[in-house]
Amino acid sequence: MKNALFGGVNAAVLTPMRADLSVDLDRMAAHCRWLLAHGCNGLGVLGTTGEAASLGISERTAVVEGLVARGIPAAKMMPGTGTPALTDTVELTRAAERAGCRGALLLPPFYYKNPSDDGLFAYFSEVVQRVGGEIALYLYNFPQQSAVPFGVALVERLLRAYPGKFRGIKDSSGSYENGLSYVEAFAKDGFEVYAGDDTLLKPLLEKGAAGCITAASNVNCSVGARVYAGWNTPDGEAAHAVLAGTRKAVISVPLISGLKALVARNTGDPAWETIRPPHLKLTAAQKTALFDAFDATGIDLPKAA
Amino acid sequence: MKNALFGGVNAAVLTPMRADLSVDLDRMAAHCRWLLAHGCNGLGVLGTTGEAASLGISERTAVVEGLVARGIPAAKMMPGTGTPALTDTVELTRAAERAGCRGALLLPPFYYKNPSDDGLFAYFSEVVQRVGGEIALYLYNFPQQSAVPFGVALVERLLRAYPGKFRGIKDSSGSYENGLSYVEAFAKDGFEVYAGDDTLLKPLLEKGAAGCITAASNVNCSVGARVYAGWNTPDGEAAHAVLAGTRKAVISVPLISGLKALVARNTGDPAWETIRPPHLKLTAAQKTALFDAFDATGIDLPKAA
Repeated sequence: MKNALFGGVNAAVLTPMRADLSVDLDRMAAHCRWLLAHGCNGLGVLGTTGEAASLGISERTAVVEGLVARGIPAAKMMPGTGTPALTDTVELTRAAERAGCRGALLLPPFYYKNPSDDGLFAYFSEVVQRVGGEIALYLYNFPQQSAVPFGVALVERLLRAYPGKFRGIKDSSGSYENGLSYVEAFAKDGFEVYAGDDTLLKPLLEKGAAGCITAASNVNCSVGARVYAGWNTPDGEAAHAVLAGTRKAVISVPLISGLKALVARNTGDPAWETIRPPHLKLTAAQKTALFDAFDATGIDLPKAA
Repeated sequence: MKNALFGGVNAAVLTPMRADLSVDLDRMAAHCRWLLAHGCNGLGVLGTTGEAASLGISERTAVVEGLVARGIPAAKMMPGTGTPALTDTVELTRAAERAGCRGALLLPPFYYKNPSDDGLFAYFSEVVQRVGGEIALYLYNFPQQSAVPFGVALVERLLRAYPGKFRGIKDSSGSYENGLSYVEAFAKDGFEVYAGDDTLLKPLLEKGAAGCITAASNVNCSVGARVYAGWNTPDGEAAHAVLAGTRKAVISVPLISGLKALVARNTGDPAWETIRPPHLKLTAAQKTALFDAFDATGIDLPKAA
């Protein structure tokens, strides 16, 4: 797909923390620079991988503002701004636009289970009208965490009711068929579909997806960029195999903790392992298993400064 | 059970809203006064029924402060202060204590699914240490919404590690056996177990529970109070049957919307039906069915002013 606002590889950026569990914006900005230098076209900050749900509302606004203040281009950021609460979601999305972001990624309201499509339509109608402005809204389909899926019928209804407002979707369902359903229904109209699973980047690009937003991009973005640059070439095929291997390695342990451990190793900075509960650091045995499986993929991980 | 801080009937208080979906504190305070005058010993404001998850963090603090400013006794309130985020949870709990509340009801962090008991223990350890103060913490077991259950082993670990901090649990699992497991393990030490389901008030009181915190108490608290006052008397038996009938009636439609419709009817104030999406008002047909089923229980609902 051409002309996607965030087309290509986007990392669901990890959030480093100090010993007191506060966000470490200096480390985070350095990591964002590394990501942009090694294959990422965009930065999906404050998503599931970024522990956004574990951060307070004011902390989330401070992350976006703090990264911009440290020179990370706001135009490259697609912060997660979805919360269970209408008003907090609107506040975070407006703050993202004020900071210069061109897009925001919105989970559905995820506390109340089994909302109706009418209820979700009413919710996003309120969000659109209250947010106003020009910021592009991306839907975040991740039923394993949110327990609230976005079906094609609901997306279609939102696109019709609010033309130009909903620009794409991140699909973390892990289902090729589900990702494909969005591509087939909407990609021809410029709707950007992002794979939330590295192994689906290549097959969905073949069908017209815009790229990916993945957790593993925190460590494998240089490989993902090779897939994106030439998914229909031998190098793209070879990169896809490595990408799939790294995905398999990182989901063999608790995902966010494992990615933090890999970045800690790559930066030589053990503080990177700090994580907010209910997540926990990997055990030594988990780290060994992860590092072995990750290295066995043959990935050539660019060194962090 | 004697000496429970919130022993007896507690309503999971509804949150009335204006047409712009902001919280209507005057209507809410009037409803709280009606509840306290008609059988409620305590006010579980800002729980699931109170649409707390649909309210922003600053709105939630304003509700507690606003009710106190309107003369609702802080000592009667047990606000819900659990959020997915450690920092917001701490902020809300501290604000509740500052406002004069003696207890707060804490959901587990409910975004990330399948957290380990070690992770939940680490989370609540941080909460306890950061909150400090004297406020009693009540755990909120509601796996149907939070997807994160509190097992007896985890509760026991928290009670041992932080003596005197965790004072009880609200069990909305709907399972008698689950509620009983908390009563049998901890009630002898003064741990207050609250049924989250009206039909379990009587059977759990018989075993040593402290009372209930229920959604339907917004309309049936005068009946619940009769059960509490004499669960082992003929009047308590009769009240239990009516209570169970009203519970069955209100869960035959979307619960929060249905309770708001019943209060709207009882107050003659249709504004009471306003609700934040993803919830929706009942349809006319749903209202008719609900009112018929509710009235068929023979409940003598005290009129609201």
